[in-house]
Amino acid sequence: MPETISTTISPEGSLEILSQHEVSRLHDTSRSGLHELLRRCALAVLNCGTPTDDSLALMEAYHDFDIEVIQQDRGVRLKLTNAPAEAFVDGRMIRGIREHLSAVLRDIVYVYNEIQSHQRFDLSTGEGTTNAVFHILRKAGTLKPGRDPSLVVCWGGHSINREEYEYTKDVGYHLGLRELDICTGCGPGAMKGPMKGANVAHAKQRRHQGRYLGVSEPGIIAAEAPNPIVNELVVMPDIEKRLEAFVRLGHGIIVFPGGVGTAEEILYLLGILLHPDNADMELPVIFTGPANSADYFRRIDEFLVYTLGEAVRRHYRIIIADPTDVARTMRKGVDAVTDYRRARQDAFYYNWRLTVDRDFQEPFAATHEAMASLALRRDLPVHRLAANLRRAFSGIVAGNVKEDGMRAIAAYGPFTLHAEAELMARLDALLNSFVAQGRMKLSGEYSPCYRLA
Amino acid sequence: MPETISTTISPEGSLEILSQHEVSRLHDTSRSGLHELLRRCALAVLNCGTPTDDSLALMEAYHDFDIEVIQQDRGVRLKLTNAPAEAFVDGRMIRGIREHLSAVLRDIVYVYNEIQSHQRFDLSTGEGTTNAVFHILRKAGTLKPGRDPSLVVCWGGHSINREEYEYTKDVGYHLGLRELDICTGCGPGAMKGPMKGANVAHAKQRRHQGRYLGVSEPGIIAAEAPNPIVNELVVMPDIEKRLEAFVRLGHGIIVFPGGVGTAEEILYLLGILLHPDNADMELPVIFTGPANSADYFRRIDEFLVYTLGEAVRRHYRIIIADPTDVARTMRKGVDAVTDYRRARQDAFYYNWRLTVDRDFQEPFAATHEAMASLALRRDLPVHRLAANLRRAFSGIVAGNVKEDGMRAIAAYGPFTLHAEAELMARLDALLNSFVAQGRMKLSGEYSPCYRLA
Amino acid sequence: MPETISTTISPEGSLEILSQHEVSRLHDTSRSGLHELLRRCALAVLNCGTPTDDSLALMEAYHDFDIEVIQQDRGVRLKLTNAPAEAFVDGRMIRGIREHLSAVLRDIVYVYNEIQSHQRFDLSTGEGTTNAVFHILRKAGTLKPGRDPSLVVCWGGHSINREEYEYTKDVGYHLGLRELDICTGCGPGAMKGPMKGANVAHAKQRRHQGRYLGVSEPGIIAAEAPNPIVNELVVMPDIEKRLEAFVRLGHGIIVFPGGVGTAEEILYLLGILLHPDNADMELPVIFTGPANSADYFRRIDEFLVYTLGEAVRRHYRIIIADPTDVARTMRKGVDAVTDYRRARQDAFYYNWRLTVDRDFQEPFAATHEAMASLALRRDLPVHRLAANLRRAFSGIVAGNVKEDGMRAIAAYGPFTLHAEAELMARLDALLNSFVAQGRMKLSGEYSPCYRLA
Amino acid sequence: MPETISTTISPEGSLEILSQHEVSRLHDTSRSGLHELLRRCALAVLNCGTPTDDSLALMEAYHDFDIEVIQQDRGVRLKLTNAPAEAFVDGRMIRGIREHLSAVLRDIVYVYNEIQSHQRFDLSTGEGTTNAVFHILRKAGTLKPGRDPSLVVCWGGHSINREEYEYTKDVGYHLGLRELDICTGCGPGAMKGPMKGANVAHAKQRRHQGRYLGVSEPGIIAAEAPNPIVNELVVMPDIEKRLEAFVRLGHGIIVFPGGVGTAEEILYLLGILLHPDNADMELPVIFTGPANSADYFRRIDEFLVYTLGEAVRRHYRIIIADPTDVARTMRKGVDAVTDYRRARQDAFYYNWRLTVDRDFQEPFAATHEAMASLALRRDLPVHRLAANLRRAFSGIVAGNVKEDGMRAIAAYGPFTLHAEAELMARLDALLNSFVAQGRMKLSGEYSPCYRLA
Repeated sequence: MPETISTTISPEGSLEILSQHEVSRLHDTSRSGLHELLRRCALAVLNCGTPTDDSLALMEAYHDFDIEVIQQDRGVRLKLTNAPAEAFVDGRMIRGIREHLSAVLRDIVYVYNEIQSHQRFDLSTGEGTTNAVFHILRKAGTLKPGRDPSLVVCWGGHSINREEYEYTKDVGYHLGLRELDICTGCGPGAMKGPMKGANVAHAKQRRHQGRYLGVSEPGIIAAEAPNPIVNELVVMPDIEKRLEAFVRLGHGIIVFPGGVGTAEEILYLLGILLHPDNADMELPVIFTGPANSADYFRRIDEFLVYTLGEAVRRHYRIIIADPTDVARTMRKGVDAVTDYRRARQDAFYYNWRLTVDRDFQEPFAATHEAMASLALRRDLPVHRLAANLRRAFSGIVAGNVKEDGMRAIAAYGPFTLHAEAELMARLDALLNSFVAQGRMKLSGEYSPCYRLA
Repeated sequence: MPETISTTISPEGSLEILSQHEVSRLHDTSRSGLHELLRRCALAVLNCGTPTDDSLALMEAYHDFDIEVIQQDRGVRLKLTNAPAEAFVDGRMIRGIREHLSAVLRDIVYVYNEIQSHQRFDLSTGEGTTNAVFHILRKAGTLKPGRDPSLVVCWGGHSINREEYEYTKDVGYHLGLRELDICTGCGPGAMKGPMKGANVAHAKQRRHQGRYLGVSEPGIIAAEAPNPIVNELVVMPDIEKRLEAFVRLGHGIIVFPGGVGTAEEILYLLGILLHPDNADMELPVIFTGPANSADYFRRIDEFLVYTLGEAVRRHYRIIIADPTDVARTMRKGVDAVTDYRRARQDAFYYNWRLTVDRDFQEPFAATHEAMASLALRRDLPVHRLAANLRRAFSGIVAGNVKEDGMRAIAAYGPFTLHAEAELMARLDALLNSFVAQGRMKLSGEYSPCYRLA
Repeated sequence: MPETISTTISPEGSLEILSQHEVSRLHDTSRSGLHELLRRCALAVLNCGTPTDDSLALMEAYHDFDIEVIQQDRGVRLKLTNAPAEAFVDGRMIRGIREHLSAVLRDIVYVYNEIQSHQRFDLSTGEGTTNAVFHILRKAGTLKPGRDPSLVVCWGGHSINREEYEYTKDVGYHLGLRELDICTGCGPGAMKGPMKGANVAHAKQRRHQGRYLGVSEPGIIAAEAPNPIVNELVVMPDIEKRLEAFVRLGHGIIVFPGGVGTAEEILYLLGILLHPDNADMELPVIFTGPANSADYFRRIDEFLVYTLGEAVRRHYRIIIADPTDVARTMRKGVDAVTDYRRARQDAFYYNWRLTVDRDFQEPFAATHEAMASLALRRDLPVHRLAANLRRAFSGIVAGNVKEDGMRAIAAYGPFTLHAEAELMARLDALLNSFVAQGRMKLSGEYSPCYRLA
Repeated sequence: MPETISTTISPEGSLEILSQHEVSRLHDTSRSGLHELLRRCALAVLNCGTPTDDSLALMEAYHDFDIEVIQQDRGVRLKLTNAPAEAFVDGRMIRGIREHLSAVLRDIVYVYNEIQSHQRFDLSTGEGTTNAVFHILRKAGTLKPGRDPSLVVCWGGHSINREEYEYTKDVGYHLGLRELDICTGCGPGAMKGPMKGANVAHAKQRRHQGRYLGVSEPGIIAAEAPNPIVNELVVMPDIEKRLEAFVRLGHGIIVFPGGVGTAEEILYLLGILLHPDNADMELPVIFTGPANSADYFRRIDEFLVYTLGEAVRRHYRIIIADPTDVARTMRKGVDAVTDYRRARQDAFYYNWRLTVDRDFQEPFAATHEAMASLALRRDLPVHRLAANLRRAFSGIVAGNVKEDGMRAIAAYGPFTLHAEAELMARLDALLNSFVAQGRMKLSGEYSPCYRLA
């Protein structure tokens, strides 16, 4: 039994000023079905000290954890029962964690109240969806009008080896030295390393306003809890809006070695960049890792060229084992983004101009049927194939680490994917290499949640 | 012809981050009927240098003034045509005025989009209305969670004599020395004096975060333009919500000599404080003026006792010609409010606990019919009579200085009011004294907009 | 008997960190002869509420006032006995005054310990003196490296009429609107008006870091106490170093109507600007006043041309009754100073390049002998005559309002000045016009402290 | 040949406002003999990227490095020739390093000009010395009046193993979680680990004003260069003043495993705490290390008890392998210091009350004669023996890593130490254990710089 603490805390950094109506809505969360969602996300945030990606085990370990919103005329307080003790120092919750807890509550409630209940945004359209993403980010204080472009999105596996982890820290350090900020999906591994490195570099450069932005979603937050260095946290309602947040917020993207989640992100990004409307879009993308990751990126590169065509290579650059070069290249790329946006009077804080096809916006629910019916054929238009591959990888992530997905796999066995023969073979090889390299799970033996028909 | 300037400016302090949808809504204001409203309010804000309360004359003088919202990907810009030159210094708009302009735009658009169009708030109920007031104020950044109670609402005439004006400055000075902030309805006279005085005192006390909050509404803003010392401006959608904002925001209220507008505010305030639910409410109220205003307040006091009964005296204190005593008493009163709220865990920034009857919330449109049908009889319940007297005074204000009211009077002659005999006589005497003392208009001879039947 | 308060306060803004040695030196001030100096300056600062220029009367009224430095391991505290009650609000000293009190103590002790006792600076040389001035100002935090030039020195009478006072406020207001800061010699009249005006304008422009710098000296501070709006106060050891501080700190100089003190400042300034080394020096100088001061400045101008020659006119510009023009001209002048300094890599915060002749640096003690032996003849080199005229005016100031001077006059009768005939006549006319216009004393009839032989 | 860069930079954080005299003194450093001192310290600061404790090798590697102060009217600039390239990012010096460089220049010049040249402080007395230490620290901005006690001095070896280093980070992390700040002697190992740990914890606790204070001296700075995380750097003139700075600044002291330098610090500290005047002094001292350091501290403890008596144990507590307990104990200890100082109205920022005997203040020059004549006998008074042991260890540090000492050893062979037999044996055992554990040098085989006679 893990050590726990029960206490009552005030929100921090968000939610200080609520109307009585909002407070009572928060209080009534149980009736609206939000309570379980809030409980899970809150637990993820509180559990930041113990690395795990096993959402089910976490929920099991703290099965008697609860969170309740207490109404007070002066505002709300959060009543925690049996919360992980490591979120506290001598009985006081670590301030960064208190901020995260408030952020989780803020985003869940905002999304539910403003996005889902009120139909202010027509989520069946691209424009409505992009607007909803914008509003969630603005509500979270993520859009900062006074800052020059500096936000580098770092993607990569949560389960990476020590050498790779040190490399991500090193890259983060060199980005930080060049006054760049970090945005990741939260969690351990490649999502944490760059922030730690940048934090040290920012201290050396006396950059007191460094940003360590974590963008999560309810399904993944338990598996990828925000490290407390994250000083801005946003919980997007689903994986597709989270991905859209990344590409509209980021001024550059770095991809470290990872597993299927990283593959999903790569397909999403390149599927979008290949859209004709984005032909002249300025967005630096770098794939990088330590020396022993050269083979990994060679495989990814081959798979991309095979599936999306040679033209895809125009959109990324592979740099192996050279953090300084990565950082210098990214700095130049971000400067080019600055010039690009300035020339077009685009906002620095949100890339409105990027076209994201509906195929990449519509939430994909990873059911057995949906997975089985994905068309994975090279005769599809390139962006359609990219979108479907993205969905396939997304489904495997769900089966691996998300609570719903894991339950579905437990009940019905692995997902089945259908693809044309060679594509199937290449996909098989890629996925097997992830398994072989231990990129699927943080610990324990990996039992695949999919099979290729 | 007044000197004018045409130029394009960026918003300041508000509206920096807008979605494309919001920008296009702003841009399309003309179609929504908001354009004329925006134009009038903007002109009022820009005209702050020339004291006038003649809205019609102002609109006439700058009949070719226009404001347009220009859409840019990076945000919005405001295109001004033939704007009053005095809002500018060597071609650059004074920053305080730029903030006011942005505030006006923010509030008009927010009210229209969020309050009126979306029906998020049920304005036919007390709770819904109070919530709407809260949301408008929160959106404007007016609710500051970290501050101790310090906001003193100052009411009083826009048209007062030099001695009275100096007195209001003096009171503001002594309030400022005691670390109190000022909230008024904007405009000249008793609404400006306390801010000027407090500004000097805050400089002496090195209180750099002093607040000079102006709460206006579209109908009155042209007649009572915000002085640029106002460093927070909110435009409420109507007079009733403006009054509710005053009483929920303020931690104490000071009433200086004034005319019908001030009488309206007094009736509103006491009508509320007499509600049984508010019996134990802590809210210091002081009536004060220089020596020669003793008679003025004696008349007000008599009128109040006659109409609302002796019990009304429990809710205010009259202090004549002693700014230090006023400030010291108010300081103690605000400290008592602090204790009261703390004991009940009430918010400092919004007085949720105050009960405001629907009679005081429902917008009153000052038409000839509405005025004529007001019941002004002492056999009414006290709060009903207070509410109706408030409406009567409100109508006279409209007829005196608001554009719509002035047009109605011009077309159909003065409003007719019906009241029982002695009440009528006393009302007549009170109104005549306002006329005699020049409290109805800033300049020119006053021709009454009402007649007592 | 004025109302007094006895209490103990902590320093504010200076003196927070002292060594035990420094504390004991402060504590021992009485033995070093500094006690009386400190007592007088402290009283001047505390008496800011009551305008007076009668140092003797002030010292008499508060003859039992005392100040003592109390030693504590954590620092010092100041024990005040029978201090003027108006420096306090409900028993707490106004923060601006507490800062001034600390500044007075800081400067007196610093000058005594570092400048006078240790002989670190050779005050018999120009370089040593200029260095000492620099060190006093730096110690006081007056030299701010990060700011663009913005400091306008305003000179003029402490005893001016209402119209002139309002005009100085108006000029200050228009300077403040143009982001300019104000430096004066403290005290009432033309030294206070520009600060009040600028304070309002800075509020409108949201210029939160506006500077209101007062430069005083022990002999004058009782007659010209700092208004609490002064947010930086420096007490220079003597009048000559105070004048040098003005011309090295200021980026432009405005002269309002005044009496002999103003005349002293004008002669000082022009005597320096006429030095060949300063021929290309960029330093805007404007003489200005309301319409009825046109005659005043015509007289000054004639006197200057007669004594210093036609060339003197190159160094100033006279603008009558046009605050906006004054401010606009000064803004341009300060911008030219910025360019000039930038081109030469000169510091913005201290005009090292300005040559100040020894004649203008050596302290002039206004004794009867010294006054009588001043050579006032047009056959002297221009800068010598300017220097001697400066001394003559300085002596008259001392006889009018400084404690020592007033005692000397009381004991030995008026000073005698010798000059060649026409110069004498013109000087006589000038001084008489000051007397006639009430520029010599704040109140009471003026009995001249000089006679022209 | 290491990569180098030649460039000119502006000072940062210090030295922005200098008098012309000060600038020319800085410029003339070569004549005053300060140039070589400045050159060596500057090189140490610039070389922070490459861990070395070999001052001679460093000076050799960059033999053509030079630094020159360039005079400009607007201030000074530093001209660097052949500076280590790693201090720069893409040609721009890392801001933290620029601050360190300015701090080095500031302290060397201040000490030379104000402490040594002017004889303001009588360094032959305890009071004069303590005052000089105070003035150097105040000049450096190290004394912060507004802060509660929070500064934990961490001592320990620069040459420690990975496990020990991780442990120091862990302790720093737990201190940082409890809002404590870190002060060390700069350099690698136990001087860097706690700062890195605290930096991460401060990020998690959103403690933006965390202090990482490095106190160095010219002789050691090359061997123990400040890590750029150090955000305040002071260079004291000699080792004794550096030690006095530690004990007067710190609110608690933690000792990690180390070598002779650490032993010197322990003897210094306990020699002082054993002084009768300090009997009731509140100053928490903790010796701590990972599990495998238990034996190390047992040896130290035995040696202390043997030499200084059983009573010494009252002054420290040994905690093995429990960072949380260390941090919690220290937090309580610092709270007790706060209460102690508050009760006595002592300053929080400088422990004036601590008595430091002259034996511990007088600079000890580690010559062969001085070392040979040290009396190391148990019949000496305890504090004398502690003082002599401190000197003996200090001499060995000099022979190991300081430039002068290394040259003396190279020229004349090892120092000889004389002690009574058993003391000698125990000293021998202790020193041998340091050698065996690799605590003497960062790299290479250790050849002792001493022999026990």
